[in-house]
Amino acid sequence: MPALAKAAPEIRHRADDPVAARHLIRSGAVTGTTAGLAPGYVQGNLAILPSEYAADFQRFCAFNPKPCPVIGISEPGSPYVPALGEDLDLRTDVPGYRVWRDGELVAETDDVTGYWRDDLVGFVIGCSYSFEEALTEDGIEIRHITLNRKVPMFETNIPTAPAGPFRGPMVVSMRPLKPADAIRAVQITSRFPAVHGAPVHIGKPEMIGIKDVRKPDFGDPVPIEADELPVFWACGVTPQAVIGRARPSFCITHAPGSMLVTDIRNTRMAIL
Amino acid sequence: MPALAKAAPEIRHRADDPVAARHLIRSGAVTGTTAGLAPGYVQGNLAILPSEYAADFQRFCAFNPKPCPVIGISEPGSPYVPALGEDLDLRTDVPGYRVWRDGELVAETDDVTGYWRDDLVGFVIGCSYSFEEALTEDGIEIRHITLNRKVPMFETNIPTAPAGPFRGPMVVSMRPLKPADAIRAVQITSRFPAVHGAPVHIGKPEMIGIKDVRKPDFGDPVPIEADELPVFWACGVTPQAVIGRARPSFCITHAPGSMLVTDIRNTRMAIL
Repeated sequence: MPALAKAAPEIRHRADDPVAARHLIRSGAVTGTTAGLAPGYVQGNLAILPSEYAADFQRFCAFNPKPCPVIGISEPGSPYVPALGEDLDLRTDVPGYRVWRDGELVAETDDVTGYWRDDLVGFVIGCSYSFEEALTEDGIEIRHITLNRKVPMFETNIPTAPAGPFRGPMVVSMRPLKPADAIRAVQITSRFPAVHGAPVHIGKPEMIGIKDVRKPDFGDPVPIEADELPVFWACGVTPQAVIGRARPSFCITHAPGSMLVTDIRNTRMAIL
Repeated sequence: MPALAKAAPEIRHRADDPVAARHLIRSGAVTGTTAGLAPGYVQGNLAILPSEYAADFQRFCAFNPKPCPVIGISEPGSPYVPALGEDLDLRTDVPGYRVWRDGELVAETDDVTGYWRDDLVGFVIGCSYSFEEALTEDGIEIRHITLNRKVPMFETNIPTAPAGPFRGPMVVSMRPLKPADAIRAVQITSRFPAVHGAPVHIGKPEMIGIKDVRKPDFGDPVPIEADELPVFWACGVTPQAVIGRARPSFCITHAPGSMLVTDIRNTRMAIL
């Protein structure tokens, strides 16, 4: 190339720290998925409900900590969760929201300020990104990351413990692993109960009601090699599926892959 | 039954504590297996070698801590291991010994005092009894215990790291478990690195060179149900197999199932 041809100025969002990442999302400079933003920091699933549903939903989460590990709750009417980030604003800091009325999707937006109400309670729920980072740092390959796909997810026959209107089967995510890596993954993810913890199943999808492990109900399929076992973790899509069944009068959730970036380091989610 | 018919006096060996158990063994009142003796206390595999082999063997164990977790070593020439029991005597406190010369079995006896030499070093190696107790206390069924059989053991294609003349494949024990119990068993046994620790394999016996999981190389076969996975742990028979291959000029081992009862509580083997 001719030496005088200058490269186009690279637009590089400095989103290596979570505060900067949220500001870029808030300003609209970052849209879509939050995968790869603020590496090392916890990202959360989001569910925002009117306060009349909040006690039942919180009880549901308490009864089902593996699929629904609550890592933050806002005061009724407040869009802030200072424990997860001093300036964090639930109305603007997620790049994609879904707004639901009576169980029907009524809007997809990158800002829910106009939908905010003084009776809303936000629940932030741990996400598998945190334990995937710990697995990757241990040298374990995560197939859907390698293939740049969404994690495959399945509705199962594993019941959740109901609370009020919230009930329904557990949704799980699946990662194919060699047996020795599966054992190591049990050890690593057991240290992270606030981000789904240890697997709920290994090796025999039919036992948890999965008819075809190559055809996920949500996300993308990934191949399972002959020397691998499918390993299943409780998934943060479970609360969304349960809310969908409960058909609350009003609800806001994050759009798939558009998570809430927090100031909590992933390593701080480890109990040991 | 007539009220006057007195029951025959029950001979019940009071071997609930390890010191009493060793004294009963030493006196000849207890023979054969030590299974069920001094519940709650660590039992060990035993390997006694001339000092010329001791450094290589200890290095072999250090290189292969999963099959060969050393929990005690005697001073050269001494039959005592006070760290495992103040009065513990390696010559008399195991109910069955095997004596080997140049790799050939030359005697089976319950007392090796006559074979003792002032250059012998005793190695006590952790045993799966300790983690099986932790699994059972968690409500997990151990199939071979239910069936009153020996645990099924297999030679694998998993290499050990060699040291001097000591080399050869890892021997593993197998326990069939439901997938959720297998995950729990990984968690529990990970806490016990000094008694073989976490499993080395799960679910695919052919991957570790096991042709027929129903036909163990040592111990007894146990059934594996359709809703179970075979789970494999490194086994304390590995050092015996490796010593057998090395054919040292002289060696004493415990007979299968006749372990060394120690004063260490199983719970003290847990790192967490």
